[in-house]
Amino acid sequence: MDTAERILRLLRQAPVVSGEVLSSNLGVSRAAVWKHVEALRASGYRIAALHARGYALTGVPDRLLPTEIEQHLTTERFGRRLECFETIDSTNLRAAALARAGAPEGMLVLAEQQTAGRGRLGRSWVSPARVNLYASFILRPRLVPADAPQLALAAAVAVVRALRALPGLAPERIAIKWPNDCLLDGRKIAGVLTEMDAEADRIRSVVLGIGVNLNAPARAFPPALRATATSVLLATGTRVDRPRFAAGLCAALEAVYDRVVGEGFAALAPEWEASSCLTGRSVRIEGGGRCSTGTVRGIDAAGRLVVAGPAGEERIMAGDVTIVDGYRMLAAADEERGR
Amino acid sequence: MDTAERILRLLRQAPVVSGEVLSSNLGVSRAAVWKHVEALRASGYRIAALHARGYALTGVPDRLLPTEIEQHLTTERFGRRLECFETIDSTNLRAAALARAGAPEGMLVLAEQQTAGRGRLGRSWVSPARVNLYASFILRPRLVPADAPQLALAAAVAVVRALRALPGLAPERIAIKWPNDCLLDGRKIAGVLTEMDAEADRIRSVVLGIGVNLNAPARAFPPALRATATSVLLATGTRVDRPRFAAGLCAALEAVYDRVVGEGFAALAPEWEASSCLTGRSVRIEGGGRCSTGTVRGIDAAGRLVVAGPAGEERIMAGDVTIVDGYRMLAAADEERGR
Repeated sequence: MDTAERILRLLRQAPVVSGEVLSSNLGVSRAAVWKHVEALRASGYRIAALHARGYALTGVPDRLLPTEIEQHLTTERFGRRLECFETIDSTNLRAAALARAGAPEGMLVLAEQQTAGRGRLGRSWVSPARVNLYASFILRPRLVPADAPQLALAAAVAVVRALRALPGLAPERIAIKWPNDCLLDGRKIAGVLTEMDAEADRIRSVVLGIGVNLNAPARAFPPALRATATSVLLATGTRVDRPRFAAGLCAALEAVYDRVVGEGFAALAPEWEASSCLTGRSVRIEGGGRCSTGTVRGIDAAGRLVVAGPAGEERIMAGDVTIVDGYRMLAAADEERGR
Repeated sequence: MDTAERILRLLRQAPVVSGEVLSSNLGVSRAAVWKHVEALRASGYRIAALHARGYALTGVPDRLLPTEIEQHLTTERFGRRLECFETIDSTNLRAAALARAGAPEGMLVLAEQQTAGRGRLGRSWVSPARVNLYASFILRPRLVPADAPQLALAAAVAVVRALRALPGLAPERIAIKWPNDCLLDGRKIAGVLTEMDAEADRIRSVVLGIGVNLNAPARAFPPALRATATSVLLATGTRVDRPRFAAGLCAALEAVYDRVVGEGFAALAPEWEASSCLTGRSVRIEGGGRCSTGTVRGIDAAGRLVVAGPAGEERIMAGDVTIVDGYRMLAAADEERGR
């Protein structure tokens, strides 16, 4: 920890700390203390100098700074190694490079902004600056590649837990849309992109990318997304403390990750299922050159979506789901009968 | 095709070709023809100049040159895009970089020598210069990651087909050891390393690395491997025409790949099974922190090894197999009874 970080730590422990106490605690001159306080102010900290009493921390910057996140961390491994970028092409790309270079499990890459943020299926992820969370975790699970979808489903459970821990957000407003999108009031609030480096029968590393729309205003989304995407701020009017949320996500993810690797997705399936917005709905699922329609029954222990279709029950491992409205399903059913 | 390649092509079509015919066919002067012939000689071609008759191709270099491989190619896609290196760290690393940059399916990277050749499970692959085949193919299958082991198993079938097409090699001398090692007279002759870049539920690209020991002399292997590895030359005394073998491997691989992607591994399982050296054998399988013992019953449609063990039948997706001799299995059985 450098001197500036130690000053912050002391300022957090009391309303006011005298220059003398800081100077003697840190073993530097009072002039040096002053210089560090100036540097902290320059990075966005508000520190009042109270005549004859000392310094008081009156505000912290709304920034994903390691020191802001670390003070909230409760984890063993997740987020303990941390890189924070002001801007980057993609946190997943950076984490993948770190993973290939041997970075440890739980290492986290964050960025205030992504210039080439990526989503599932080669899509992009809208990544405006300084309002959301763009996080990529390095994982080294002892799993076969066939189990990777379970990690992605578990990640959605962690995101839901982290969102539900926000003050003023009723739990039932948060839902999961299979496989791993998170919705707030039915609009997309978070997405997960799971990328792996693997041999045919052995995962070497996984990068779990998680994007969460926290304080984005409506204008941060392109017009085409405004009807389907949202942020916590947009939906609740309340700003999220992003460093605290990042630390909470680390904790939720460490817990569900250890669970899914140790016991399999089956151990998390009931919690996932309880948040699913698809159970009982009529859906169309496209992917891998196929299209299925039917009514969602739930999820199985391997993380496959169980769908009752016209030709019987299907268990679907991968695809893109559209909820089909009653009218169109009726029309489809009529076509079926017409054959 | 450049002028030198067109000269080679004409020389291959007739025993002797006059300088005049070459010059008029290629639209260059006889002096230019001479210069190209000299350049071809410098890269190892033997071209006789027969007084008053013309040029005759009397020998080609034992080198993996694109022009030597292409003349034998019978494929649609596999090997049609081709990079040949004199030396490289790892053909798989190069192919993975090409795949990320968008290289097409079937593109092949070859090298005469690898300085950091890699095998399964983080092991190295001994890669002496100018005697073997080190080949990496880029694949873009529309499969989920769970199906990747099927590609690796299919690759072993292709290697077996390519080896069995060599003159003077009785088919029964070649065997597959699950999941995808190839043996000649019970010693390792080829290995497959399947690496993928994937999302949780979608393969983006696979690099299929295939190493085949063709003309390696015994001294090319480190002493520790000499008892367990072999080459075609060592086992048969006959040198392999490496460019022709490379083209044959492309053809075999294209055929089995289209089969496994189109119909699943089940379509190749009987051929795989017929070459397996494990069926009926007592084995110990280690991997993923587990160890299983039992008698191999065969392979299932998903490519899992079916093993009958003391606690019943297991289907094993990943691991390292050791054939256990009678004595040790007996001892293990006694221990079981002793409990």
